[in-house]
Amino acid sequence: MLIDNLEMVKDLARGAVLLGTGGGGDPYIGQLLLQQQIREGRFVELIDASELADDALVVSIAGVGAPTVLVEHLQANDVCQRLLDRMERYMGRKVDAIIPVEVGGLNSIIPLALGAQVGLPVINADGMGRAFPHIEMTTFSVYGNTACPMFIENELGDAVTIEKTTTDRKTEDIARVVTGTLGAMVYSSLYPMSGHDVKTKAILGSMSYCLEIGRGIREARINYDDPFEGLLKILDQPENDRHAKILFDGKIIDTKRETRDGLHVATIKMIGIDDPSDVFEIEVQNEYLVATRNGETVCIVPDLIATLDRESAEPVTGEKLKYGQRLKILGLAASPIMRRPECLEVFGPSAFGLSEEFICVEDNKIK
Amino acid sequence: MLIDNLEMVKDLARGAVLLGTGGGGDPYIGQLLLQQQIREGRFVELIDASELADDALVVSIAGVGAPTVLVEHLQANDVCQRLLDRMERYMGRKVDAIIPVEVGGLNSIIPLALGAQVGLPVINADGMGRAFPHIEMTTFSVYGNTACPMFIENELGDAVTIEKTTTDRKTEDIARVVTGTLGAMVYSSLYPMSGHDVKTKAILGSMSYCLEIGRGIREARINYDDPFEGLLKILDQPENDRHAKILFDGKIIDTKRETRDGLHVATIKMIGIDDPSDVFEIEVQNEYLVATRNGETVCIVPDLIATLDRESAEPVTGEKLKYGQRLKILGLAASPIMRRPECLEVFGPSAFGLSEEFICVEDNKIK
Repeated sequence: MLIDNLEMVKDLARGAVLLGTGGGGDPYIGQLLLQQQIREGRFVELIDASELADDALVVSIAGVGAPTVLVEHLQANDVCQRLLDRMERYMGRKVDAIIPVEVGGLNSIIPLALGAQVGLPVINADGMGRAFPHIEMTTFSVYGNTACPMFIENELGDAVTIEKTTTDRKTEDIARVVTGTLGAMVYSSLYPMSGHDVKTKAILGSMSYCLEIGRGIREARINYDDPFEGLLKILDQPENDRHAKILFDGKIIDTKRETRDGLHVATIKMIGIDDPSDVFEIEVQNEYLVATRNGETVCIVPDLIATLDRESAEPVTGEKLKYGQRLKILGLAASPIMRRPECLEVFGPSAFGLSEEFICVEDNKIK
Repeated sequence: MLIDNLEMVKDLARGAVLLGTGGGGDPYIGQLLLQQQIREGRFVELIDASELADDALVVSIAGVGAPTVLVEHLQANDVCQRLLDRMERYMGRKVDAIIPVEVGGLNSIIPLALGAQVGLPVINADGMGRAFPHIEMTTFSVYGNTACPMFIENELGDAVTIEKTTTDRKTEDIARVVTGTLGAMVYSSLYPMSGHDVKTKAILGSMSYCLEIGRGIREARINYDDPFEGLLKILDQPENDRHAKILFDGKIIDTKRETRDGLHVATIKMIGIDDPSDVFEIEVQNEYLVATRNGETVCIVPDLIATLDRESAEPVTGEKLKYGQRLKILGLAASPIMRRPECLEVFGPSAFGLSEEFICVEDNKIK
């Protein structure tokens, strides 16, 4: 599929906010970068993993840093080009395609902007099926690939390479402290993989799903009185392993937030539109981790929590939430691969220090 | 000069403790590594910078980390070999010689052990003329070379490269946080330079001076009733720009120390052997920074403060100082190049947050 017009980019960015589950960095910056490419006549091809040769060289390109800082950075194009160059020099061969490390947030769009700029296809897949705060939280890593060599660079040209580590968690720890030293926001090329790796380990079809969501919201505003009705027809298709429901309809009465160890940590408290005794809370570590309604867990990582304007169904990022805002909260099932025990170990509740067990969002009591 | 016997190594290590001015990491580990090489018949050539071709490729090899942790690490040989390999791969050519980044502490001996292992000469020069806590505190850096690319590795094989930064201070900051993440102690190859750079920017003759000091102490114990008398004949030669004096003769009554941000931070308090009202203090940041006698500054960085056993004149590292210990404290003039204004800016008192002006140790009131 060729991404060749500005509306597709807006749709992608809208979908990426929803799949960013509160975090992942605001895709708006990526939208501007990609729209600039398209205006200048450089389009980008989104290809299915099945189109890759098994021995193709595929790499990820991603921003790393606190999303509250991320929104202030714009000169990503040159940095990403240099990161691709460094990866190619190290690997001793040309990169054949780019794969987003995460479909949620800024890192879904950055690869498209770079792909358009350098003429490389982007794969219709990713490693997170949403956004996560850590580099090691990918199906790539769970199934044996490593983030290294990971090339890091900022706009000043400061350049660091994490060449090899014993675990991707250590790569994450190093990338985090290096990012802090280099100004809280950097870009990276990482996860060099083969075409075969992508076909067997990635979350397939996630980029076109992102586009489908963004376009679906836009069209639902025209075709339905309540756009959520149209949106849920896309998100909730049990026959296709898609499950979604509205978890809450309310307004924000409190937000506590801080940037801690380079992470955006927050708690969002809401009450029902019609019933102030109906209390809803979301815990945030860059992304939404867990939602409780009247003290009961109704959605938990890696399942997705999304905050949307209750009238327009426009997805809203976590750092934009503010007192008094009226939202509908969606809960979405993660991709089946992400609910496997080996995956839950790396990005399930316990990986974030939560004591709750994972429960499937479709199994909660909310109708 | 060929370093081919165990006594030379002990002499070098003894001199390196004195020139380490309290820090630099205990050379004892380096002594063991180098003695092992020599026992196995691998000697190392110490060559003068003048013997280098102008276009020779010279690199430094150094341990980075808190010296209190440093003493617990032993498997440096393989790590240093890998670091040399990585530098050569990156530069696309063989390294011709190794230069110690600092003549004080462990990092004076590590390059010799590696040189013996791989058959490379080590240059009779360094970049600090003593030990300093930061990577950017070298004459190399002051006069325009950069520490990058800096290759970092630990015994587990975790490998990070600081490829390029806008300042060596930033390289230091990155190396420091990476070191903390990789286990508080790593080795590195850094400061790739030309032979011409070394001839014009290094502190020349410092390694043979280190050997001269270590041997001088050993011989002075035999030839003098008071070994300090013999030692001062080496250290205090005004005609050769060497100045030294005994700053204090006393015992330790208090030591305050902590490891903070990967640095060994301490205050050593002493009183006179015969006069408890005669008070002497040393401030430490890995190395001794400033010595005061009864509140008056008598020696300050980059001039060298050395703590020696008051009977045997054996130099003692800062982390080994303890309550009740009887010491003579020496003050030594830094190499003239290091007292230039552009050098004082990088490793003079203000670079360590001290408000005192630099004063030459030979100009204090102590006779």
